[in-house]
Amino acid sequence: MKENIGIGLAGFGTVGAGVFDVLQHQRDLLAERSGFQFEVRSIVVRDLKKVRDVAAPSELFTTSWRNLLKDPEIKIVVELLGGTTDAFEFIKAAIESGRIVVTGNKALLAEHGEEIFALAKKHDVPIFYEAAVAGGIPIIQSVRDAFVGNRIESIHGILNGTSNYILSHMQEAGPDYRAALAEATELGYAEADPTLDLNGGDVAHKAIILAALAYGFWVKPEAVRVHGIQEVTATDVFFARDFGYVIKLLATIRAAADHSIEVTVAPTLVSKNSVLASVNGAFNAIAVKGDLVGEALFYGKGAGRKPTASSVVGDLVEAAFALESPARHVGFSSHSLYGASKAPQDVHACYYLRVAVDDQPGVLAKIATIFGEAGIGIASVIQPKAKDKNKTDLVFMTHEAAYGKMSNALEKIKNLSCVKSTPVLFNVESV
Amino acid sequence: MKENIGIGLAGFGTVGAGVFDVLQHQRDLLAERSGFQFEVRSIVVRDLKKVRDVAAPSELFTTSWRNLLKDPEIKIVVELLGGTTDAFEFIKAAIESGRIVVTGNKALLAEHGEEIFALAKKHDVPIFYEAAVAGGIPIIQSVRDAFVGNRIESIHGILNGTSNYILSHMQEAGPDYRAALAEATELGYAEADPTLDLNGGDVAHKAIILAALAYGFWVKPEAVRVHGIQEVTATDVFFARDFGYVIKLLATIRAAADHSIEVTVAPTLVSKNSVLASVNGAFNAIAVKGDLVGEALFYGKGAGRKPTASSVVGDLVEAAFALESPARHVGFSSHSLYGASKAPQDVHACYYLRVAVDDQPGVLAKIATIFGEAGIGIASVIQPKAKDKNKTDLVFMTHEAAYGKMSNALEKIKNLSCVKSTPVLFNVESV
Repeated sequence: MKENIGIGLAGFGTVGAGVFDVLQHQRDLLAERSGFQFEVRSIVVRDLKKVRDVAAPSELFTTSWRNLLKDPEIKIVVELLGGTTDAFEFIKAAIESGRIVVTGNKALLAEHGEEIFALAKKHDVPIFYEAAVAGGIPIIQSVRDAFVGNRIESIHGILNGTSNYILSHMQEAGPDYRAALAEATELGYAEADPTLDLNGGDVAHKAIILAALAYGFWVKPEAVRVHGIQEVTATDVFFARDFGYVIKLLATIRAAADHSIEVTVAPTLVSKNSVLASVNGAFNAIAVKGDLVGEALFYGKGAGRKPTASSVVGDLVEAAFALESPARHVGFSSHSLYGASKAPQDVHACYYLRVAVDDQPGVLAKIATIFGEAGIGIASVIQPKAKDKNKTDLVFMTHEAAYGKMSNALEKIKNLSCVKSTPVLFNVESV
Repeated sequence: MKENIGIGLAGFGTVGAGVFDVLQHQRDLLAERSGFQFEVRSIVVRDLKKVRDVAAPSELFTTSWRNLLKDPEIKIVVELLGGTTDAFEFIKAAIESGRIVVTGNKALLAEHGEEIFALAKKHDVPIFYEAAVAGGIPIIQSVRDAFVGNRIESIHGILNGTSNYILSHMQEAGPDYRAALAEATELGYAEADPTLDLNGGDVAHKAIILAALAYGFWVKPEAVRVHGIQEVTATDVFFARDFGYVIKLLATIRAAADHSIEVTVAPTLVSKNSVLASVNGAFNAIAVKGDLVGEALFYGKGAGRKPTASSVVGDLVEAAFALESPARHVGFSSHSLYGASKAPQDVHACYYLRVAVDDQPGVLAKIATIFGEAGIGIASVIQPKAKDKNKTDLVFMTHEAAYGKMSNALEKIKNLSCVKSTPVLFNVESV
């Protein structure tokens, strides 16, 4: 006999409809493997009249998550509403009513993770959120459970498929950022409003979740330096290549020797020989360095209906097991073995800096002087032949320096009369 | 208050001593993250007098696992004895006494998994075995738990660090197999007796475990075609390169359209552009193709004290949670959604075949005729300039054919008077 588990599904978009679909089509597989049969008893949508590409009985639909919570047969709720207002209210109410929660809402966890897990602990209700980071890649359970015995030294992640698609197309074909974006949108990788995909916001949410698992506390969003790919031009892609690098939108999560925690999201030059450099298209990859496991890498589709539904369904099975085992953790354990988060200005990195300058003698010296006075070492400089007779690009690769120091130097460089536009600054990581 | 969990450790070799070490050194980390404090109460060794590189109180040591099981405070046993005789007796006795088992014993599970999990189910005792496959890479929990909603189309794995170290060194430096092996032994990758590392036996054990998780039954060892790397010569490495391939010792686990299951371990040519081709040295990698998740790849250290201890300790935490949640699965769910295993002779593959022949006209035609009569299509042939005046190598890449058909053809080719030695046959996989 298979046990019947009542599910409430909040959200019926790309992922929500995918989950519903998988629960129907893989019914036997799931029952055989897990012993559970999942029954979706209620589906929350905003618009009852919208035409759906996955069919579901109309009597399941409701526009209010409050209705969903009224059904005592619903033991697990799946939150795929998105956003941080309604979804937040829903999750809190679900926890308070004793429902186990499965969610893919990275923004909500990044902004309110501390409060959500405190509430979950209070009510002894586990939260599952494998779908929140890197789609189908099981990075949450790997970092939290499999690597529980490891001190995590660093996590480097390519965590947004849209921006990676754009960057890898710029790398291969050299089109402009805007042309590649249009292409990505057409292929369905970019959201209708891809702002969070491109400005690093989406990656920052995921990075905060990974940092919480690795270091036991929730880094505040304002403590994360976030830069998107809007500033990356074909020019930079070519210069990076000259230096032997590829530009990726990279999340860097790292414990310093003093146990303070860095979370940075920035266009980052990685060696063309690194594994992360070869992660192309809409794929995600996460490199984890632990004191026991050494270097481990996870690679796969980071978004899309099926890969994300794969993670939600995996969580549903875990949630069903959790219904009968109240002792297991709620999904996140806070502890104070590490320090606070490092302020962005105190985070050290190597940098790539491109400055558009007047093509005249003495310009390099002026900039080098500013670096010298700031105590920032220059690793190499490229001064290519001028494209037009007045303007040229100067490209610097620096040694390690605090971002605050670098920002100050940048401000001074920007104010030089020979500098024609705001300099472009990316990170350089050896991963 | 942290909960104290009594552990019995059977085996104090590379991994066992590593586990003991980690439990001491990461005590606070584990306690904070999991809420458990692990106390090793007994250690089973063969020789009490042996000098150990990890210190443990002498009163913990015993030469009999029966003594270990007499301690009622030991709730979880860690089996790292190796082998399939004593370890088998120990695990059965542990299960029957209600102890949760953590093991890294791939040979034991591959040969007796069916019996062990049947016993575990009877006594409702879970078995954890993340350390049995690919060291620190969490591939067991990923395939079983994270991908529970997926139909697994295939798994391709580089699962033995020693053989991969040898092959990648032959690839780079071109030394002979024996020279590379000596190097690997010196670096501590190869066992004192590396037979199972090299002849594919170790990989076959791991492949059988992965197949069980993906397809719900235990493929019998005799149903697995196993070839090791002993036949791979520098000549083959160079020919493969000419065709655009790299030779890897690959486990291929796959469901056919008729739901029959293939498990093959063989030196396999993979495209030099594939991710698996770039897995070098003592690393492991596993590519999983699921109908939902698409292509996922896991990469990391597949052996060694710390990476393997990482997995054992991860399992210990899971085991400690399991002490309080009897409902969770025992670690493997058998089901009959897939058919039986496919007999090796019925498994289809593309092949690389090298034949040492007399350097005279008509030889190619004779071999091509045998292929033609067997219905095996030739994709390409290389006939390099003869190295000595009498003998040359002929290299064929074939289209897909059943292994049985290929073996028969091979037998006929071997018996041709112009063929000088046993032909070399490897698989070709597009991964």
